[in-house]
Amino acid sequence: MTVLITGAAGFIGVNLARRLLDAGHRVAGIDNFCRGLPENLAGLRAHPGFSFVEADLSDLDVFRDAARHFHAQEGITEVWHMAANSDIPAGIADPGVDLRDTFMTTFNTLQVMRELSVPALAFASTSAIYGDLKGERIREDVGPLFPISNYGAMKLASEAAISAAVEAWLPQAWLFRFPNVIGVPATHGALLDFVRKLARTPGNLDVLGNGTQQKPYLHVSDLVDAMLHIRGRASERLAFYNIGPDDEGVSVRYMAEQVVAAASPSATITYGKGNKGWVGDVPRVAYAVGKLEALGWRTGMDSAGAVRRAVAEIVAQERG
Amino acid sequence: MTVLITGAAGFIGVNLARRLLDAGHRVAGIDNFCRGLPENLAGLRAHPGFSFVEADLSDLDVFRDAARHFHAQEGITEVWHMAANSDIPAGIADPGVDLRDTFMTTFNTLQVMRELSVPALAFASTSAIYGDLKGERIREDVGPLFPISNYGAMKLASEAAISAAVEAWLPQAWLFRFPNVIGVPATHGALLDFVRKLARTPGNLDVLGNGTQQKPYLHVSDLVDAMLHIRGRASERLAFYNIGPDDEGVSVRYMAEQVVAAASPSATITYGKGNKGWVGDVPRVAYAVGKLEALGWRTGMDSAGAVRRAVAEIVAQERG
Repeated sequence: MTVLITGAAGFIGVNLARRLLDAGHRVAGIDNFCRGLPENLAGLRAHPGFSFVEADLSDLDVFRDAARHFHAQEGITEVWHMAANSDIPAGIADPGVDLRDTFMTTFNTLQVMRELSVPALAFASTSAIYGDLKGERIREDVGPLFPISNYGAMKLASEAAISAAVEAWLPQAWLFRFPNVIGVPATHGALLDFVRKLARTPGNLDVLGNGTQQKPYLHVSDLVDAMLHIRGRASERLAFYNIGPDDEGVSVRYMAEQVVAAASPSATITYGKGNKGWVGDVPRVAYAVGKLEALGWRTGMDSAGAVRRAVAEIVAQERG
Repeated sequence: MTVLITGAAGFIGVNLARRLLDAGHRVAGIDNFCRGLPENLAGLRAHPGFSFVEADLSDLDVFRDAARHFHAQEGITEVWHMAANSDIPAGIADPGVDLRDTFMTTFNTLQVMRELSVPALAFASTSAIYGDLKGERIREDVGPLFPISNYGAMKLASEAAISAAVEAWLPQAWLFRFPNVIGVPATHGALLDFVRKLARTPGNLDVLGNGTQQKPYLHVSDLVDAMLHIRGRASERLAFYNIGPDDEGVSVRYMAEQVVAAASPSATITYGKGNKGWVGDVPRVAYAVGKLEALGWRTGMDSAGAVRRAVAEIVAQERG
């Protein structure tokens, strides 16, 4: 198959592209390097099955030209839409960021796919669509859906647009609702923030919030594995799955302690107040993953194991 | 209070404005006459408490200028955002219609309210956010939410953006989930279509679909009554309520028969095939309205009564 990956230079995109290429598929990538980095593509560019164009998906004309180019050359069989704003606080300060980079990129992806008659879409959705359910184990069919960040709102808006497209013309869509995903190449997130803060002030680590926020974490290798499993097994036209470990997650305190142990063992940790790192942060998320388990997939690493591996990888990344 | 009504020349907007003015409030109206009609405002313009400006809400700069003008003169205390694309099939053919007229108008309303520090938003949401639940009695907290029209998708996207705003800065929001609302001034909908078809071909009425689609109908006078009841009584910061009659609704066949009886009693009725009038049409909707009843409100007319009254009103409207 020939897969168009949007956000191909981003954290998820790079890992997904590598896995698909290794499996013998052809991959076309698009990214505007807004958050993804050109150097993330270094390993991929050497692969004969990989092609890439720099383009801003929020500009429909530019996106259409890039997709037509690939489609004429390769015949795109499916689109994996991974591009999005991944900086939640940035979208709280300016809702225009999530509007443009998360929602309009999805809207335009659907427009371009409809024009080119590409029949299948895989979409990076998120636990943030569920809002703050106060630690309730979240099943996929829970309601109501009141996201508390613009990031979550524009991901829910994207799911809704995809749902309407499935009704009208799109033969197949997979909605992957991600938990916090960690690993390398790290471009954002608490672990990277902690590692960088410690590099600047090796004696102390300042943590936003009181450290009690608790969420499930998944290593990016497991995430890619789960997405491909769902893509191969789910029979619904509109398939929607939580992806995550079957545990209660780990706390920010645990993550801070792991980073300190790996990067600067003698550092002290200073916590802030409250159980939200920022406005729009959900303090406690717990995922029900029974639907995915019933499809035959379980994570290889639990949340704590994923954190430990990602910490080691991110420390190595930052030391170059 | 001074209420800014978006879509003030539309079906709901005109009825809402009249009720607020009658209750002694001041009303500022905005409309671009895309679907609302200038003549709908004739009665309102005579009222000293009413002011109006023609502006396109999907253009942020234009909207901001209009809202600032009103705010400087009157001090807007709340916004009732009723503007939207109301033509569901149009949004199926071109998703850009709902994007611009339903979602972007909401996004811009939030932007302008934030800039002007207007503390309360009332929003015209819809049963279409729930998708096709196969006739299940829909409670407000049902999930998952997979709308099957772009209209429903962009209303759900709007709810999501409002939810994120309530978390970040908006003190109060009311989400009113409308059923099918009928009455005058009718600008769209099955009853108006039927009346106009019969005016052209008095001997026969062609109905899309097989006539078995069944939905709850609410007369616009009851809708406005319910919205004001919720606004006065609900204590939640983000209040969300189904508004509708406590019945199973009436069929398209019933509506067609009522229109024929009122407008052209000797006409025959011809039905199409299938139980969807168009792609994205939900064939069977049934509302749970226990939450609204617990707040102390019940409709005055059931679905059948609302249809009979609206048919009489629309026939009179069309005869001028």
